[in-house]
Amino acid sequence: MSLLLVAQHREMEPFKSAIQRADPNIEVEIWPSVKNRARVQFALAWHHPKNVFGQYPNLKVISSLGAGANHLLQDETIPHSIRFVRASTPSLASQMSDYVTLTALNLMRRTETYIKQQQKSIWKRHEAYPKKEMTAGIMGLGKLGSIVARRLLHNGLNVCGWSKSKKKLNGVETFSESELHAFLSRTNMLICLLPLTKETEGILDLKIMKQLKKPSFLINVGRGGHLVEEDLVYALDTGRLERAVLDVFNTEPLPESHPFWGREKITITPHIASITHPDEVAGLIAENYKRLLSGMELLQEVDRQKGY
Amino acid sequence: MSLLLVAQHREMEPFKSAIQRADPNIEVEIWPSVKNRARVQFALAWHHPKNVFGQYPNLKVISSLGAGANHLLQDETIPHSIRFVRASTPSLASQMSDYVTLTALNLMRRTETYIKQQQKSIWKRHEAYPKKEMTAGIMGLGKLGSIVARRLLHNGLNVCGWSKSKKKLNGVETFSESELHAFLSRTNMLICLLPLTKETEGILDLKIMKQLKKPSFLINVGRGGHLVEEDLVYALDTGRLERAVLDVFNTEPLPESHPFWGREKITITPHIASITHPDEVAGLIAENYKRLLSGMELLQEVDRQKGY
Repeated sequence: MSLLLVAQHREMEPFKSAIQRADPNIEVEIWPSVKNRARVQFALAWHHPKNVFGQYPNLKVISSLGAGANHLLQDETIPHSIRFVRASTPSLASQMSDYVTLTALNLMRRTETYIKQQQKSIWKRHEAYPKKEMTAGIMGLGKLGSIVARRLLHNGLNVCGWSKSKKKLNGVETFSESELHAFLSRTNMLICLLPLTKETEGILDLKIMKQLKKPSFLINVGRGGHLVEEDLVYALDTGRLERAVLDVFNTEPLPESHPFWGREKITITPHIASITHPDEVAGLIAENYKRLLSGMELLQEVDRQKGY
Repeated sequence: MSLLLVAQHREMEPFKSAIQRADPNIEVEIWPSVKNRARVQFALAWHHPKNVFGQYPNLKVISSLGAGANHLLQDETIPHSIRFVRASTPSLASQMSDYVTLTALNLMRRTETYIKQQQKSIWKRHEAYPKKEMTAGIMGLGKLGSIVARRLLHNGLNVCGWSKSKKKLNGVETFSESELHAFLSRTNMLICLLPLTKETEGILDLKIMKQLKKPSFLINVGRGGHLVEEDLVYALDTGRLERAVLDVFNTEPLPESHPFWGREKITITPHIASITHPDEVAGLIAENYKRLLSGMELLQEVDRQKGY
């Protein structure tokens, strides 16, 4: 039996080493040079090429290399019998909380303006957006969203949250699916942490941006597919939105010709809000692999029907 | 009796309005067009011109417009009989905590690198400095320093602190004056929150920078006089220090010709870490003014001998 690592644009050797440090008995193969396809029962996948998984007759489980599984869910070439798991570690939530916190504070304190002023030797103060009057609104209050919400609270921000079913979270004003408008009208800084599903695709559109409390900001750390790109540009150009910070894009790496690069009101980071490091995730992968082999319940299994 | 507002490079009308909202009976004058000098008993000063206070025969108290009083302490033209108070509000500590937090997170997550990459349409990831392995070291663990330390702890950083007399602070490894080397050798990110006194002037020198744990960073939110500028440049050029973030300078505004502006490894912000807003401070000023008139103990009085 073996465990297969499949990824494009990412070096997989460190993951192999880390998994074998976690359990030296696990046989690990790295795509594309696979010695024995029939032995593969478990795969770890990130940005995998289409049609790759049909070639492994005994493959039973694919693990995402992170909290999101939409790259697996959206690939219709993956046989329906194959089960999906995610690999969400405490470090992912901590990194995400750091990223959202620094982004929210940078927006309020105009960090980017000062960095650009320095390039022109300009000493000029700007009013900060007063924290007491600003509310961060988190879309997606699952495990990750709740951790991010708590961190923002610790940093003195007003926080509200929106999720399919209404959550209870100390200090956070929460809203259910049907209360979207109330949630948006309370929110200055919209933070998208949703999973990407058929229902949430394109959810960040002009209609939603128009309902935000002014001054309004957008932070997308969900997936590129959540955002309607032309609506964002329109909202920024018409002053409906002050700024947007984007860590995820429809096409990654973001093509050099993409108009977002040159926009003064858009901040781009190269999908670094939360990165899975080999040693942090190896134990979980090894655990799920052994659970599969011994017929135990898998950790962090994804419901392929529900899509999350 | 009247209260005088004295400042250069800052509009004082909003402070007059705010003080009179706090107490409509207070007579407020704004330098330089003062109607009756003999009536002035209390002054509020920020970047005041030298020799200005000798002209008010009945002046008894000068309040700083912020937490620092060194601009008063260093002015030898101020008669020795005049008492000093500071005007430190909860908002100043909260703003400072925000600034130090966002700066520490930005350094670890390389925010500035990504902003500059975007200007060249470059999509490239960099390893973040791992938070678990990084320790923030705060110089100056007074009221303000303790609040900042707590906030960094809430954001998951390792924190240690150094102060004249050893402090006890939950979760923070503290060091006393004589333990400076131990403190520095534990610290990656040195955060200067000291008052500027004769003993602390020029404290941020090459000797100190050399003792920091690598990778090393400097955040100066104390006063420009704490830093030996040429030592900073040398430490950055020789790779002893990775980056420095400076909010305070010997001369403010920082002259356009200053070599710091163009340095890739120095981030400059225009003394905005913590700004006193009129309405947040007006109540405290009015209170101290009335305490003076009624002979009560002043709030936040500065010991002119000790210098803080």
